[in-house]
Amino acid sequence: MIKVGIVGGTGYTGVELLRILSAHPDVELTAITSRGDSGTPVADMFPSLRGIVDLAFTSPDESDLQKCDVVFFATPHGIAMSHARDLLAADVRIIDLAADFRLKDTAEFEKWYSMPHACPDILKEAVYGLVEVNREAIRKARVIGLPGCYPTSVQLGFAPLLSQGKPLVNESMLIADCKSGVSGAGRKAAVGSLFSESADNFHAYGVKGHRHLPEIVQGLKAITGNTREIGLTFVPHLTPMIRGIHSTLYATLNPESSDIDIQALYENHYRNDPFVDVLPAGSHPETRSVRASNYLRIAVHRPGNANTLVILVVEDNLVKGAAGQGVQCMNLMFGLDETTGLRQVPVLP
Amino acid sequence: MIKVGIVGGTGYTGVELLRILSAHPDVELTAITSRGDSGTPVADMFPSLRGIVDLAFTSPDESDLQKCDVVFFATPHGIAMSHARDLLAADVRIIDLAADFRLKDTAEFEKWYSMPHACPDILKEAVYGLVEVNREAIRKARVIGLPGCYPTSVQLGFAPLLSQGKPLVNESMLIADCKSGVSGAGRKAAVGSLFSESADNFHAYGVKGHRHLPEIVQGLKAITGNTREIGLTFVPHLTPMIRGIHSTLYATLNPESSDIDIQALYENHYRNDPFVDVLPAGSHPETRSVRASNYLRIAVHRPGNANTLVILVVEDNLVKGAAGQGVQCMNLMFGLDETTGLRQVPVLP
Amino acid sequence: MIKVGIVGGTGYTGVELLRILSAHPDVELTAITSRGDSGTPVADMFPSLRGIVDLAFTSPDESDLQKCDVVFFATPHGIAMSHARDLLAADVRIIDLAADFRLKDTAEFEKWYSMPHACPDILKEAVYGLVEVNREAIRKARVIGLPGCYPTSVQLGFAPLLSQGKPLVNESMLIADCKSGVSGAGRKAAVGSLFSESADNFHAYGVKGHRHLPEIVQGLKAITGNTREIGLTFVPHLTPMIRGIHSTLYATLNPESSDIDIQALYENHYRNDPFVDVLPAGSHPETRSVRASNYLRIAVHRPGNANTLVILVVEDNLVKGAAGQGVQCMNLMFGLDETTGLRQVPVLP
Amino acid sequence: MIKVGIVGGTGYTGVELLRILSAHPDVELTAITSRGDSGTPVADMFPSLRGIVDLAFTSPDESDLQKCDVVFFATPHGIAMSHARDLLAADVRIIDLAADFRLKDTAEFEKWYSMPHACPDILKEAVYGLVEVNREAIRKARVIGLPGCYPTSVQLGFAPLLSQGKPLVNESMLIADCKSGVSGAGRKAAVGSLFSESADNFHAYGVKGHRHLPEIVQGLKAITGNTREIGLTFVPHLTPMIRGIHSTLYATLNPESSDIDIQALYENHYRNDPFVDVLPAGSHPETRSVRASNYLRIAVHRPGNANTLVILVVEDNLVKGAAGQGVQCMNLMFGLDETTGLRQVPVLP
Repeated sequence: MIKVGIVGGTGYTGVELLRILSAHPDVELTAITSRGDSGTPVADMFPSLRGIVDLAFTSPDESDLQKCDVVFFATPHGIAMSHARDLLAADVRIIDLAADFRLKDTAEFEKWYSMPHACPDILKEAVYGLVEVNREAIRKARVIGLPGCYPTSVQLGFAPLLSQGKPLVNESMLIADCKSGVSGAGRKAAVGSLFSESADNFHAYGVKGHRHLPEIVQGLKAITGNTREIGLTFVPHLTPMIRGIHSTLYATLNPESSDIDIQALYENHYRNDPFVDVLPAGSHPETRSVRASNYLRIAVHRPGNANTLVILVVEDNLVKGAAGQGVQCMNLMFGLDETTGLRQVPVLP
Repeated sequence: MIKVGIVGGTGYTGVELLRILSAHPDVELTAITSRGDSGTPVADMFPSLRGIVDLAFTSPDESDLQKCDVVFFATPHGIAMSHARDLLAADVRIIDLAADFRLKDTAEFEKWYSMPHACPDILKEAVYGLVEVNREAIRKARVIGLPGCYPTSVQLGFAPLLSQGKPLVNESMLIADCKSGVSGAGRKAAVGSLFSESADNFHAYGVKGHRHLPEIVQGLKAITGNTREIGLTFVPHLTPMIRGIHSTLYATLNPESSDIDIQALYENHYRNDPFVDVLPAGSHPETRSVRASNYLRIAVHRPGNANTLVILVVEDNLVKGAAGQGVQCMNLMFGLDETTGLRQVPVLP
Repeated sequence: MIKVGIVGGTGYTGVELLRILSAHPDVELTAITSRGDSGTPVADMFPSLRGIVDLAFTSPDESDLQKCDVVFFATPHGIAMSHARDLLAADVRIIDLAADFRLKDTAEFEKWYSMPHACPDILKEAVYGLVEVNREAIRKARVIGLPGCYPTSVQLGFAPLLSQGKPLVNESMLIADCKSGVSGAGRKAAVGSLFSESADNFHAYGVKGHRHLPEIVQGLKAITGNTREIGLTFVPHLTPMIRGIHSTLYATLNPESSDIDIQALYENHYRNDPFVDVLPAGSHPETRSVRASNYLRIAVHRPGNANTLVILVVEDNLVKGAAGQGVQCMNLMFGLDETTGLRQVPVLP
Repeated sequence: MIKVGIVGGTGYTGVELLRILSAHPDVELTAITSRGDSGTPVADMFPSLRGIVDLAFTSPDESDLQKCDVVFFATPHGIAMSHARDLLAADVRIIDLAADFRLKDTAEFEKWYSMPHACPDILKEAVYGLVEVNREAIRKARVIGLPGCYPTSVQLGFAPLLSQGKPLVNESMLIADCKSGVSGAGRKAAVGSLFSESADNFHAYGVKGHRHLPEIVQGLKAITGNTREIGLTFVPHLTPMIRGIHSTLYATLNPESSDIDIQALYENHYRNDPFVDVLPAGSHPETRSVRASNYLRIAVHRPGNANTLVILVVEDNLVKGAAGQGVQCMNLMFGLDETTGLRQVPVLP
């Protein structure tokens, strides 16, 4: 059994980790920390876990995190990097759901997250946990920087186009028009996330610049083998639903690629990825078709057979966009089948 | 492996049966019928099941239902009873999610459902599938009339009070104020179930009389051992959520019962029922705490220590109120542990 | 023109006052205060008011509230009473949307609101602003304690039954099962009001005791002419909608009242009240039928012609349950027609 | 008083016309027709209109539509054109909320709406009712083809860019990523519009081709003075809210336009349009900021000062996208101020 610790178990990615890991056949939940709720039984805060998770929250300082095999950080940015050195020294692997190990350029990190990086050396060895792109590196990783929810959908949506030897599309003018459910903003009290503010309402935010933009650009560039520059316009929107991200991606085919079979390209690219589902031509994936599951579905369109491609991508932001992808990484790191404990059937309706 | 057929797989209880049964370790899905969608792959209608359910819908007439061990009817009222005799002759057991085998009095059935009963003899042997009340009878049943979603929550909420030798409360003046998510109305196109009609809106319906009223009264009376009459005011309400029922029950303590420990009564009553969870005193169960799971949670209140008891009950109407309870019955009928394939962790948020 | 000030204009009742008063033909908006947002143009916080309200928030200390004819307090409990004496001295009338002037018994106030009352003498002269009950007193009032949202619906729902010379129903066993939209919790950041906590979810709260309970009991008793005691069980529930309250009221007819014509009683009682609409027999009012309007609709049921009455009441908690009722009071206090500026048509869908 | 008839008053645009026109100071509602509900009082179907609209639905055949000054058609496509000749002969003006008089090319009409056009000559004289583009022509029109909800937002969003003498942006590669509330699908019973299908869910539709595409392209071309061709990728999405459209528009600046002041361009373009509000630079308009009102708000962004412009547009699809714009046209046609009866303050929250 893999001994698992969770730091910061009171947010949405924390409780989602608990939902998944409590049913994982090879995992023993060992410690769940929360500075503010130390001593509270987990099931008192989340009655959905009554009879399922018997642990209480413990203070991160007193927890035996060093006895774990792996620790998930479902914390605000900046926490994981402050624990990383000690845990690695104790031979504990780390999966960070926040941004501490995502951006390879520490200057970029400091610019977007307004804090210095605590351990640039560990950042250097950290692996970006986007399984379908980095599977082999993840198997051997000690530290995982898990992709953000938007970046997962945008990168997997563009990857088949960008991973070819030469550019199929105009890579300097990509557009990602993304729509997220409100749980993406987390469980912290904030006026903008109130029901009465976000229900029956829709708006964009962060058009000027969003923290996920440099992460996506870094990832897309990596998908080209770091051989080409990427220009991306990224517009996130808040949608009145709890879970789900729908990314609508636009790219312009280069003239020399105009007779490519895009549907076949995508199907072929993901033929061995158990959680990525390329839908039949003409489909419109719904976010609910992946609700509460680790699947991500993609549909490819070329309206009017013109040069603008439209790629539709859906995922559950809390699963494939966070906790589920973390468990997928953990499975690989510990030599398990990638899908172990992750075959929950999507909940529809 | 239990060979399972589903008649009427295109509604919400049908797709919920598929979600649960596709992951059930002892079940082989054998046939899923739909008169209107015969030939369509199930996963084309419900993309949530892509890669999980590979069957196509078949016409009920051509399906090999008689080769199944058990057939679930997730159909409108009146269908199951028309197939019952043939299936029983072929030694196939029947679990009806509609009302054909709920009301023991055929005159009542005909009054509320506006059709004659096709097989009163089979109705006589049918067992009412409320596991926590009828567990032993269900083990031996050939035909199950599964309780409606409201009746499940109301009966389990009142059962500890009514099952005592003498009445603890005024049984002629019970009140059930029930709130249901919209999926309770099914997947049929109806103006009242449109998003733009039911979102951001709340209303009662059927106050004059609802089909679940005679079913609940019959069940509550049975819980008294058919020794006492029941008077119930039942007011259902439509709530802008997809899944979930919240029943708020009111009963007046009889003077001689005024020093009873209600909390202990409930905890004791359900101590051996794996899916019924009596919450600590003072709790307010949320419907989402059982979302997509077979659990039902109850909290007991006695405001101001006066004589009016307030019982709060939550369930997922599609699981414990329909498909999940059906699988719970199936497990018992085939000698399995009651919880087999039903331990899904509730999805929160 | 009536010069109007609003203290605490950044919450939901504040912005609702602005919506209504900005279109009121006899009102001049003079000052809108907010301690935290002083200097911010109102329309920057609420873009819905761009081009409609040109004022900026001012600090309450620097505002010329004393030059107003009337000041609305859309503030937390405890603020209005600290300003009351000075405003009255300057001949400014006061309409408090919080609880400072609701409970006549200062001990009750201190028990439920955990603060001493600042001006019991002013409390004594304050009039409870439930127009349909206290219309004449409101015309002459200098200080209005506006009813809470739940209390408005429960009192107007029970009033025709309780206002008779002798009791028609068992007044010691009334039940109010109330369901409120989330805006009732206000615009403050709180985890329980987050979209991801309250969407697709339903639960009761405060069953043990809620601040509106003593207010309702005081009001119902007053409706009996303070001649009889009231026993009420009050169970509020949170519903995933923005606006609206649906109160389902239960009362048991006394034997001697069993042949009363309840429908006629209600229609007659409210025949001269422009904002109370008694629906035809058999109706089920929807909260959306009063959305964004000052109307309150009632339907009366007697299921199975038994002795339990079921009264269904809907209102918009921010209008008839708060800002609209406040403007209705203001109209009366300044000699205007009660409906002036309040004839907005409900928004459906 | 303008005598107004409404054909097809039972849908969402019909009831919205009633909400607006019943409070319009210069309108006398004369006839509301519905073939299916003839004889039913309007307020029985829409209790929100109790005490406000006293008419009953009448059969279109028996209604005295010819005595009206203007008739609104809130009907399915194909109805208005079948009544147009008779009404015009009786000197009745026509405002069609459906598509009969939108597409100038009858072949296009027949292709997208699968029916021949009944009166191409009347189509020729019909004016496209987009007030901010066609104000003068609307004043003199006898027949108005009112824009669709998506087309209104997309055309007004792009208009300042396209109406210049020479192209500022690459007009062959415009993108409109649009999100609509569910009321856009109307009040007809359809599975896809059910609450349980569209709540907590998000998806695109019609990517291959949507009826609003040729209408938008025709309109954008007209905005260039029919001097230039337009290439548009239009992707509509269904959003779990009742009302509201959010259009996110993308355009690439031509090199020679790269130092243009886009904010000033938009503010100047709409400086005399009372219902179009250009927000300050950096804004993100919310759909609720125009809920239940005729306003449309626009924000202009140029992320990273690169060449991709992002234009954000919000409107209420039932008001500025349908009924409200219809009344705006009517005001102009009858010599009234454009804003008469249309100054409702948006409902927030």
